[in-house]
Amino acid sequence: MRDLVRLDEVIDAIRTLAVRGAPAIGVAAAIGLVVALEHESEGHGVPARGVPARELLAPYAERLIAARPTAVNLAWAVNRLLTVAGGVADDTLLAALRADAEAIRAEDVAMCDAIGRFGLCIIPDGARVLTHCNAGSLATAGIGTALAPVHLAHREGRRVQVYADETRPLRQGARLTAWELQRAGIPVTVLPDGAAASLLRSGAVDVVIVGADRIAANGDVANKVGTYGVALAARAHGIPFYVAAPWSTIDAATPSGAEIEIEHRHADELGDLPVGARVWNPAFDVTPRELVSGYLTDRGFVKPPFSGVTGV
Amino acid sequence: MRDLVRLDEVIDAIRTLAVRGAPAIGVAAAIGLVVALEHESEGHGVPARGVPARELLAPYAERLIAARPTAVNLAWAVNRLLTVAGGVADDTLLAALRADAEAIRAEDVAMCDAIGRFGLCIIPDGARVLTHCNAGSLATAGIGTALAPVHLAHREGRRVQVYADETRPLRQGARLTAWELQRAGIPVTVLPDGAAASLLRSGAVDVVIVGADRIAANGDVANKVGTYGVALAARAHGIPFYVAAPWSTIDAATPSGAEIEIEHRHADELGDLPVGARVWNPAFDVTPRELVSGYLTDRGFVKPPFSGVTGV
Repeated sequence: MRDLVRLDEVIDAIRTLAVRGAPAIGVAAAIGLVVALEHESEGHGVPARGVPARELLAPYAERLIAARPTAVNLAWAVNRLLTVAGGVADDTLLAALRADAEAIRAEDVAMCDAIGRFGLCIIPDGARVLTHCNAGSLATAGIGTALAPVHLAHREGRRVQVYADETRPLRQGARLTAWELQRAGIPVTVLPDGAAASLLRSGAVDVVIVGADRIAANGDVANKVGTYGVALAARAHGIPFYVAAPWSTIDAATPSGAEIEIEHRHADELGDLPVGARVWNPAFDVTPRELVSGYLTDRGFVKPPFSGVTGV
Repeated sequence: MRDLVRLDEVIDAIRTLAVRGAPAIGVAAAIGLVVALEHESEGHGVPARGVPARELLAPYAERLIAARPTAVNLAWAVNRLLTVAGGVADDTLLAALRADAEAIRAEDVAMCDAIGRFGLCIIPDGARVLTHCNAGSLATAGIGTALAPVHLAHREGRRVQVYADETRPLRQGARLTAWELQRAGIPVTVLPDGAAASLLRSGAVDVVIVGADRIAANGDVANKVGTYGVALAARAHGIPFYVAAPWSTIDAATPSGAEIEIEHRHADELGDLPVGARVWNPAFDVTPRELVSGYLTDRGFVKPPFSGVTGV
């Protein structure tokens, strides 16, 4: 990806899903906010030419957070920078923000490694994994969340194979998960989303692992649309269904899935349609806690209520 | 569609899904077989130039039936013509076959009307229907199977709206169902297959109606891949799930879904994929009888065991 230096470019990359995956969005928002401030407050930008960085911070933060309402990591990363900004003088503001944005990236890499290590126990030699969307290295700054245990198991010499739901409408499974696993030397098989239920019924899958865009305080999970149907089918066939996500994805301010705002995206994402046909295209769905076998985080396997999350 | 006169063309149209939908395949196979015999036995065809129609009949029938193994209507229609052929002299063979093929088409139109009339009771004014794939007028010679009650309810002035699963990989819902309903003036909303479970959870759907490619003697249903996941989600939310199909779709020779041969289709149908990624692309899945609220046929609502089906 080319370098993004203006805030509009960062927001556009997040909104169009050029940057996607909850942790990657958090990292990109943090670094993107700092780069935009550095660039535009020094007078390179339009229309912010010459405005002090601190004056731009609040409106920029607000616009960034609005780019994708469901991804909690976006607001989390931006708010973290706002907290840092509140504690430093103007002359060290940009340096402090850059240091914290870089820390967010480094913490993301470490978070992925931790999820991978904790998750190794659910990927024994010969494991056959089904995943939905992409919660891998292309969704984080590191080796991913849902795919982190898969990557580590493969590096340890365990045989592992992955079934990747295509994940319509944007085909993150077919485009990203398949690419990333193929590149890593891990056998991957793509299937249409509608085939997941019969794949689970067939006995070809040992474990389902998906990521999460937001985990409510009660354990309900917002993730890429299609996740809920996979969870129902996994339950119907007694196959464990794990959600892997950084601890920061747990949102103490959201009591349950009912309060999670679901972003609806443009009809164009579905491709050619007859004139006049309407489209229902939610980006996410909510999987109720009852269907989740375990929550795999960088603090290990946890379960609701998530003690230690502020406000829970 | 242009006129198909050679057997290869008929088979190609069925295999590539230019003609699709179980009843339409039956009608197309019957008429296509007769037209090919008329054409090729008279010496227009290559390589069958001048061969008597009766000699071509058995090999042509075999090749036609092999074109799509799961659709029971295909074998049913072809075998019906073979039975007719067994009872007539050579000089009236082609005329008898043509008359029977036309009868199959007329019966298909009447079958659709009957399904529609019986099914009106599940489409009250204001009904919101979810369907998968296309079991409408583009899948039959008439007004369809799953969509027949929708078309008739609309003609009677009832307000009805349809949610159409996109139905990957070939997008029959987005291409065919949306087109046919839009053309009929019935509001239609297309959704990605993965969104069906959350749509059903949302309370926006009153009833699910799908078609069937084959119904086993015990009531298990083979239909377009993705149907099973929709059935699971409908059950999870207490929404009735109906299978609409001609009585001829019930296959006495197949005891249960376990014996239904599932056709696997080419990886290309899934579109661009990373080099080396494998594909699992079954054309159908099996929905167990436990998830089916009712079987809507041209003989009314029936349930297994389907008495009167030969051999059941």
